[in-house]
Amino acid sequence: MADNATDACDVKSMDDIMALCKRRGFIYQASEIYGGVNGFWDYGPLGSQLKKNLRDAWWNDVVMLGCGGKPGPDGKPVRIVPVDTCIIQNPKVWEASGHVGGFNDPMVDCRETKSRYRADHLKCLGEKGDTEGQIYAYIENDDASYASARKKLDRYKKRALSDAEIDTCALTELGNAELAITVGPDAKEVGTLTPPRAFNLMFKTVLGATGDAEIDKAYLRPETAQGIFINFKNVVDTTRVGVPFGIAQTGKAFRNEVTPRNFTFRSREFEQMEIEFFCHPDEAKAWYEFWRDWRMAWWESMGLKGENLILREHDRDELAHYAKEGAGTSDIEYRFPFTAPGYGELEGIADRTNFDLKQHQEHSKKKMEYHDTTRGELLPNGQPKGEWYLPHVIEPSAGLDRGVLAVLCEAFTPDPERPSGVVMKLHPRLSPIKAGVFPLVKKDGMPEVAEKLRAELHQRFGRLGAIEFDEKQSIGKRYARMDEAGCPFCFTIDGDTMTDQTVTVRDRDTLSQERMGLDKVGDFLAEKLGV
Amino acid sequence: MADNATDACDVKSMDDIMALCKRRGFIYQASEIYGGVNGFWDYGPLGSQLKKNLRDAWWNDVVMLGCGGKPGPDGKPVRIVPVDTCIIQNPKVWEASGHVGGFNDPMVDCRETKSRYRADHLKCLGEKGDTEGQIYAYIENDDASYASARKKLDRYKKRALSDAEIDTCALTELGNAELAITVGPDAKEVGTLTPPRAFNLMFKTVLGATGDAEIDKAYLRPETAQGIFINFKNVVDTTRVGVPFGIAQTGKAFRNEVTPRNFTFRSREFEQMEIEFFCHPDEAKAWYEFWRDWRMAWWESMGLKGENLILREHDRDELAHYAKEGAGTSDIEYRFPFTAPGYGELEGIADRTNFDLKQHQEHSKKKMEYHDTTRGELLPNGQPKGEWYLPHVIEPSAGLDRGVLAVLCEAFTPDPERPSGVVMKLHPRLSPIKAGVFPLVKKDGMPEVAEKLRAELHQRFGRLGAIEFDEKQSIGKRYARMDEAGCPFCFTIDGDTMTDQTVTVRDRDTLSQERMGLDKVGDFLAEKLGV
Repeated sequence: MADNATDACDVKSMDDIMALCKRRGFIYQASEIYGGVNGFWDYGPLGSQLKKNLRDAWWNDVVMLGCGGKPGPDGKPVRIVPVDTCIIQNPKVWEASGHVGGFNDPMVDCRETKSRYRADHLKCLGEKGDTEGQIYAYIENDDASYASARKKLDRYKKRALSDAEIDTCALTELGNAELAITVGPDAKEVGTLTPPRAFNLMFKTVLGATGDAEIDKAYLRPETAQGIFINFKNVVDTTRVGVPFGIAQTGKAFRNEVTPRNFTFRSREFEQMEIEFFCHPDEAKAWYEFWRDWRMAWWESMGLKGENLILREHDRDELAHYAKEGAGTSDIEYRFPFTAPGYGELEGIADRTNFDLKQHQEHSKKKMEYHDTTRGELLPNGQPKGEWYLPHVIEPSAGLDRGVLAVLCEAFTPDPERPSGVVMKLHPRLSPIKAGVFPLVKKDGMPEVAEKLRAELHQRFGRLGAIEFDEKQSIGKRYARMDEAGCPFCFTIDGDTMTDQTVTVRDRDTLSQERMGLDKVGDFLAEKLGV
Repeated sequence: MADNATDACDVKSMDDIMALCKRRGFIYQASEIYGGVNGFWDYGPLGSQLKKNLRDAWWNDVVMLGCGGKPGPDGKPVRIVPVDTCIIQNPKVWEASGHVGGFNDPMVDCRETKSRYRADHLKCLGEKGDTEGQIYAYIENDDASYASARKKLDRYKKRALSDAEIDTCALTELGNAELAITVGPDAKEVGTLTPPRAFNLMFKTVLGATGDAEIDKAYLRPETAQGIFINFKNVVDTTRVGVPFGIAQTGKAFRNEVTPRNFTFRSREFEQMEIEFFCHPDEAKAWYEFWRDWRMAWWESMGLKGENLILREHDRDELAHYAKEGAGTSDIEYRFPFTAPGYGELEGIADRTNFDLKQHQEHSKKKMEYHDTTRGELLPNGQPKGEWYLPHVIEPSAGLDRGVLAVLCEAFTPDPERPSGVVMKLHPRLSPIKAGVFPLVKKDGMPEVAEKLRAELHQRFGRLGAIEFDEKQSIGKRYARMDEAGCPFCFTIDGDTMTDQTVTVRDRDTLSQERMGLDKVGDFLAEKLGV
């Protein structure tokens, strides 16, 4: 079973997927006419609509319907409100959040070649003299930090078995330990590496006309989450929501990745869909489990299923600085062609405890505690006394670009039997083109009937995606174009339509072709699109 | 007539509008707990949904329905495709577009006070010795450029009658002419000003780990438009659209304004909704007029009507560097409280000719010409020979934040007769809360019936906005809260509901209260929301 899945996965070539993305206008290299810019990607007509559809599905299901209407662990509807905060904030936000001091990649330089490497991307396959693998690193100095460094390197060794995603590790703690590296299949090129040095991942800029880089410095946000935390008090004070509740937002974030790679998976500009869900500390575990399981089900409902999607609880030694011992952290991961047989993160669900609110309370001197009037001992009048506390926070944090990429990889299905050679089996809810409408031939009144049907469907479903009219070339070529674009249904008007008012509906995935009444097409499509 | 309108406008105080925006969670100062950051604003729960609704209305009407289904000047459906491009692009993009060299604000410094002013914000009310007004500027040196400078100053004088928006003017051309300024109501403080100096409005940053500010410099886009131009060829090559057609996108843009002001009107981070519409040069005029008029009608359909909204054709001397002599440029302007009796720009519609494609063709050495197979002389086989040309571009460029602000100002209606003292008359399509559902009292089964109605409406309309359930305090206070939030309809379940299955619907704007069957509420709301 696992072998079959791996085989199925292997036949999906990332080069083929990227070529289709370019060819059909899903994703282009940013600034392509100027030779591109490393780590940035633009979405074309099909890609931007697909991305919007995935973002809208998230917003609709999470924010507007409150977890799709599923009751929370308290049995009540889940309440989520949105915000839309700035990419540039007061730099103190990032001092409080720990990003100024700690959001670093440990970088090492090769003294001989002047190349720079992310320390945790080095493959640590053995100690000095060990030539197994293409690249290896080892500790040169047997100094005081040797034991600790040796332990960390062993951990990298265990995890760094492929080019798959590796979380940034605290290699900075290696201190003065030195590494050496060999490069190339013959392990001929040998260089010595400097100790790791911190390189902050935030993009910097300067505000205002005075141009004082120190006084007026600012950062592009590395995550949308902090925009939520700094507005927690504002939202509590200006709306009628009460804990437990969530605040959600989608938006661009930026990380100055040293080595952007794997198409849109690790880019320098990306879009997040984040929820910070505030609850009483005693209920954090229940809400964490609720969110973890609901988010997994949501990704499944977007068409990511089976062995390519996994939910992985973090090991204790992977926990981030804000996660407390015993608090849950898990990733929803997808097996991308470039991570297979490993997985890459789509979304992280973390119990952040009260870390962020506490940090902002300390740095801003503004009280972040919440007064919960439903808690505390009962007073003589029968009302609870109330309780002040810093809420704990469950954070489901998803990458929109990674979601789009997973959806594209999952949909990409080579099929030598088809004229297109490949079909994009996108979930109908996400497909940028919802339906194709074709006159079989360009005469005998067929184009007019087709145009009328297109206009009707457009009026009814146009807000969800395009309705494509196509009368050029053979019907087979038109189907092939729709297969590559991921359009789930094609309706063809032919000679019979003119006499009996029926059309052929062709199903992209099953290739079945059935007749249905012209007047039934709208309801058929509504059911398939779930609207 | 004009006087009445001015009076009506004057009663709307910007301070009151900003206070309501904060109080009800429409808009907060960004990083407020850290003392804010000049020129940045965050949207709260109501504001972010309002902003999303306006963006979605634009996307739906422009992109998905193609100008709402209105045929273009050629009698055919208008075809628009979307893209979603990066904020950070290759810096060569901004060299080609003219933003590196020319996107400057001319700044003058006061030698005595060290204050810095945007040159075109100086009020030029007279020559030296003339103390009319609070601030004035004049030329000190009767040098060679006097005649030209004098002419420009006369133009500023004519236009700078208020704090209203003034486009950046080419005061840099004043050259060495000197200005002087007086400040304060008594015109007592007098300083001498330096000649204007260029200050580039783009935010800068540095890419990658090497940290070479010169080699790896990058800019935050000052407009979304260029992301479209640089992808023109990609879109033509990878989709089946043909000229005439448009490419649209929404997204954040950044300008390092020296003096951000007027709430969200002139901020440093803002969102644009831009269309670049490509057409044959001969048809540019017809398309310009089509877009100008349709965009004006669209803003009217968002509830901006009457004397507060105007369409203003630019004078010849206001034309931007890309606009050719005779090519149209116009602004759709709104009379904000802070511009009244003047107006501030919401959207500019410009015939950009082939300026941008030509610039990118020259700088990238990539051919941007379009091969139009529907044009050219007829060949012996009856087919046209085809024609190569650089399309001309009509650009309707709207500010989303400015649109939201105009909608908020238009909706803000003081009404001393109401308990809230103010009602937000937002268009139902834009309202973040679509309906309120209230049990008259918290007993006799009313909460249960109300909750059932809320759940039904939520299921049907939840994707468009919130359905608010409220059972706290008096019904009058609940109506007052909904008035301030701009909720158009409230449905109240009372004693009669329990016997005859009818509810009271209260209209926010007319204050009428009518009975209707519980089972009619959904269809009533659908009609009002236009869905």
